Amino acid sequence: MKKYALGLDFGTNSCRSLIVDLGDGRELAGYVFPYPSGAEGVLLDPDDPNLARQNPADYLKGIEVTVKEAVGQAKKADPQFDPSLVIGLGIDTTGSSPMPVDEDGTPLAFLPEFKDNLHAQVWLWKDHTSHAEAAEITALAEKIRPQYLARIGGVYSSEWFWSKILHGKRVAPDVFEAAYSFVEICDYLPGVLSGETRPDKIKRSVCAAGHKAMYSDTWGGLPDKEFLSGLDPVLGELRDRLYDEAFPSDRMAGCLSGEWAKKLGLKPGTAVAVGAFDAHIGAVGAGVKEGTLVKILGTSTCDVMVSPKTKGFPEIPGVCGIVDGSVLPGAFGIEAGQSAVGDIFLWFVRSLVPDSYGKTDKEKFMNLEKAAVRQKPGEHGLLTLDWNNGNRTILVDVRLSGLIIGQSLHTQAHEIYRALIEATAFGALTIINRLEEYGVSVHEVVNCGGLASKNPFLMQVYADITGRPMKVSRSDQTCALGAAIFGAVAAGEKNSGYNTVEEAQQKMTGVKETFKPDKENHKVYKELFRLYKELHDAFGTREWTGKLDFVMKDLIALREKQRRSG
Amino acid sequence: MKKYALGLDFGTNSCRSLIVDLGDGRELAGYVFPYPSGAEGVLLDPDDPNLARQNPADYLKGIEVTVKEAVGQAKKADPQFDPSLVIGLGIDTTGSSPMPVDEDGTPLAFLPEFKDNLHAQVWLWKDHTSHAEAAEITALAEKIRPQYLARIGGVYSSEWFWSKILHGKRVAPDVFEAAYSFVEICDYLPGVLSGETRPDKIKRSVCAAGHKAMYSDTWGGLPDKEFLSGLDPVLGELRDRLYDEAFPSDRMAGCLSGEWAKKLGLKPGTAVAVGAFDAHIGAVGAGVKEGTLVKILGTSTCDVMVSPKTKGFPEIPGVCGIVDGSVLPGAFGIEAGQSAVGDIFLWFVRSLVPDSYGKTDKEKFMNLEKAAVRQKPGEHGLLTLDWNNGNRTILVDVRLSGLIIGQSLHTQAHEIYRALIEATAFGALTIINRLEEYGVSVHEVVNCGGLASKNPFLMQVYADITGRPMKVSRSDQTCALGAAIFGAVAAGEKNSGYNTVEEAQQKMTGVKETFKPDKENHKVYKELFRLYKELHDAFGTREWTGKLDFVMKDLIALREKQRRSG
Repeated sequence: MKKYALGLDFGTNSCRSLIVDLGDGRELAGYVFPYPSGAEGVLLDPDDPNLARQNPADYLKGIEVTVKEAVGQAKKADPQFDPSLVIGLGIDTTGSSPMPVDEDGTPLAFLPEFKDNLHAQVWLWKDHTSHAEAAEITALAEKIRPQYLARIGGVYSSEWFWSKILHGKRVAPDVFEAAYSFVEICDYLPGVLSGETRPDKIKRSVCAAGHKAMYSDTWGGLPDKEFLSGLDPVLGELRDRLYDEAFPSDRMAGCLSGEWAKKLGLKPGTAVAVGAFDAHIGAVGAGVKEGTLVKILGTSTCDVMVSPKTKGFPEIPGVCGIVDGSVLPGAFGIEAGQSAVGDIFLWFVRSLVPDSYGKTDKEKFMNLEKAAVRQKPGEHGLLTLDWNNGNRTILVDVRLSGLIIGQSLHTQAHEIYRALIEATAFGALTIINRLEEYGVSVHEVVNCGGLASKNPFLMQVYADITGRPMKVSRSDQTCALGAAIFGAVAAGEKNSGYNTVEEAQQKMTGVKETFKPDKENHKVYKELFRLYKELHDAFGTREWTGKLDFVMKDLIALREKQRRSG
Repeated sequence: MKKYALGLDFGTNSCRSLIVDLGDGRELAGYVFPYPSGAEGVLLDPDDPNLARQNPADYLKGIEVTVKEAVGQAKKADPQFDPSLVIGLGIDTTGSSPMPVDEDGTPLAFLPEFKDNLHAQVWLWKDHTSHAEAAEITALAEKIRPQYLARIGGVYSSEWFWSKILHGKRVAPDVFEAAYSFVEICDYLPGVLSGETRPDKIKRSVCAAGHKAMYSDTWGGLPDKEFLSGLDPVLGELRDRLYDEAFPSDRMAGCLSGEWAKKLGLKPGTAVAVGAFDAHIGAVGAGVKEGTLVKILGTSTCDVMVSPKTKGFPEIPGVCGIVDGSVLPGAFGIEAGQSAVGDIFLWFVRSLVPDSYGKTDKEKFMNLEKAAVRQKPGEHGLLTLDWNNGNRTILVDVRLSGLIIGQSLHTQAHEIYRALIEATAFGALTIINRLEEYGVSVHEVVNCGGLASKNPFLMQVYADITGRPMKVSRSDQTCALGAAIFGAVAAGEKNSGYNTVEEAQQKMTGVKETFKPDKENHKVYKELFRLYKELHDAFGTREWTGKLDFVMKDLIALREKQRRSG
């Protein structure tokens, strides 16, 4: 008898359901629901480009629509499928995306008086209104709690939990006043499905807590009252209405309530796993394990690794977070990433590519690639830095920018396009090098996300530049797949046949394609990486001091050499 | 009774005639003749993008057509005009543009056996086939004649006389063998008009000789035989069939021959001035004098100044040439310049501007400017280096490239366009600073050339960045006007009423518009220039050593400040 699990993946613009066969990870059925509110699901403020909120009602509507559709499709796809065979469900969401709730856990956004108040909605991960508060938090921690910063790369972000709450308190004191507590949506949604949303009762995700709220067992959970009160006395008081313990996603958040079972056409009592963030759960769906770096390549990238607790705490400066159990139970989850990858290409195509390459973005991408593929490494004579949106890892610095060097009077758009792809690959290599320098060996690299499956040219450049095979995850929906895996494991061995996440991964995840590095290209790219590293350090670090007069000359010499060589 | 002079200006793609009123410089009539041969007048080799030659027959045809047309127009424009009132004519051409001639001075290109031989044609200034020979010449001079390099900025160019002849000898020994001598077209054309083309008899231009052939009275004219023979024994022999003396353009090359007078409808015996290069003669047409920097702004720029001989030789490292009498008799002519200005903008518009700015280059330029004008200095957060075609002054280094820094995910094409204009202005300021550091004071800046008269936005940016008024020459045809002035002065005071070039300039040249610097903008640009200078020195000089981590941060801070400031 086959068994299934359901994964629910809540992204920035839409959510998705996926019904997965527990035997082999086959994806039986799924459905995507674009959020109806705001602009592509995001509530904006025309006066403040930093603001990005979300309507929590969209998620609930999304669960209903996507699960019912997926169940219907699954029945058609496999006559033997029955909803009662879905034994667990898991949830991943964006984050940190907190919202204010009342004592029952009802979002303030659902109350008539706050319905249209942007500050009472979900503060989406990419909301940057709280940059001043982030700087305050970093400054205070540097002064009195440096240990807090050691686990998050040294700088607290405006995208994270405490910045958002502190800023909200300042700009909307009425909302803060009315809020009993604040919950991440990855904690709220499992609560809703299992019929228990009270803030004191829901199971909070250790992934969200550890990576975004400075939670660690080492110092007894959330930051202590003295620290929080140092930011604002009301934050110290709020601490009592948050949580003392957070959990990994192989644990149950609860059982599917009768009400929701009915709505969705699933069995009441089905296991609902503790939620977590998309990148971390996506890494599990891509087969993350010790030695495997999972790269989720999209508008930005998230790089996820694990390091077993038996090896001790992996102190790696410049990564975004190192959290016990945030990816796999029993291991430190390590999160790194690049602030912009796909976003850089999209910016370039939309802003700086003439219509001779095509009329639509898609045509332009296609023709840029066609022309770029024909070039040899170094032939364009260009080098760029991938910092248009700052550098998340290893410099952890938003006050950086892009750089293009080497252009002549003949430089064409497709050459810059190639150079931008290469820059993101050099950025990726820089992260790999940092992980290895600090004792976390990278034995394989598995890529997932839109760019990995749709851009073989990019994958080949990554292989050539890193000198490592680039594997592409079998699933195109590693987040939803990972969520389903956690749903299955949380349901227990008796139900799923899996005792651990690792067991489930072995059966349910895999690689569909491998791009092998070209030795000749790698040799040339080593030359270019030397120059990249020099520019990276010169413009990105306080420590660097030296000379740069060789950079343009070396690029020209390489260009000439590569053009001559057939 | 009015008197007139005729200026003939030979450009890269066309030649132009101009009949000028000696009383006030009024431009009575003129005509443009696009060269019929090759691609827009340039003979190309599909296998070698460095090759650029010209058919000397085009010039002769051009003289005939343009002068006859101008004379006809002048009659219509002013019933009192009579061709016999044209008392002198002057000629400027591109250069170094030498060609091989026989003992009579007939271009080998006119002989049946060499008619279709590219190496027997005029080697146009921008022909770069001789880069290896240029390096050889520089190397030998560094070793045995460093004084030769002191006057040309330290590096001999592939665009210059000796490089071209040496390369020609190697790739086309038959042509070299058949050539009795080599003449610049600025020396050939006055010879033709005055009926004396024999290489030993024609008057050579000191402008061409000094700036491009390492001629100087200091060492007895052309480079000595030992030096030339060190390059190739045949060059040593050739020296005897070149010239011992070169002349400024206020001297007569000869008198208009009967044959040509008839062809053109002018008076036989009319004075024909010694020729010179367009930039130098154009500077005269723009009113160059001590303290006045003339900038000829086009695809590249040429900056021309003079320094009176009474002040001694102005030793300025990094300028292209300092030649006695090359601009005004009795003064050192100083030539500097930027390798690409208009060319950078054209490259950008053609290669990196989407059609949302317009369909044609012209529309794109218009809309880029419209959007760029609205920005405040520093608001785009960008900084660029104007080295897409190398740096002619003050680094004298072709192995440099462009650089763009500061781009975010929101950077738009018009912002980069503005930054590129600013970069060329920073480059201009760097040259002004260099001149002043070495004792040549710049009291005023007069701009001419296409960009000066057609781009008021660019002129305003130049004023704001340099903190100096940018004047625009009254004439749009300063080269042809300058040639006419030399024609008049060469004819003598009795004919023209002018004893010196300076007297003629006072009456015949002027300024039509002045762009005054905005103080607030200049203050911001001082900040940006500090960063430009740092990048300039870091990437352009061997001496620089230091830090650059502040560059991106300062640009972002300035961007934020300028955006906030209303």
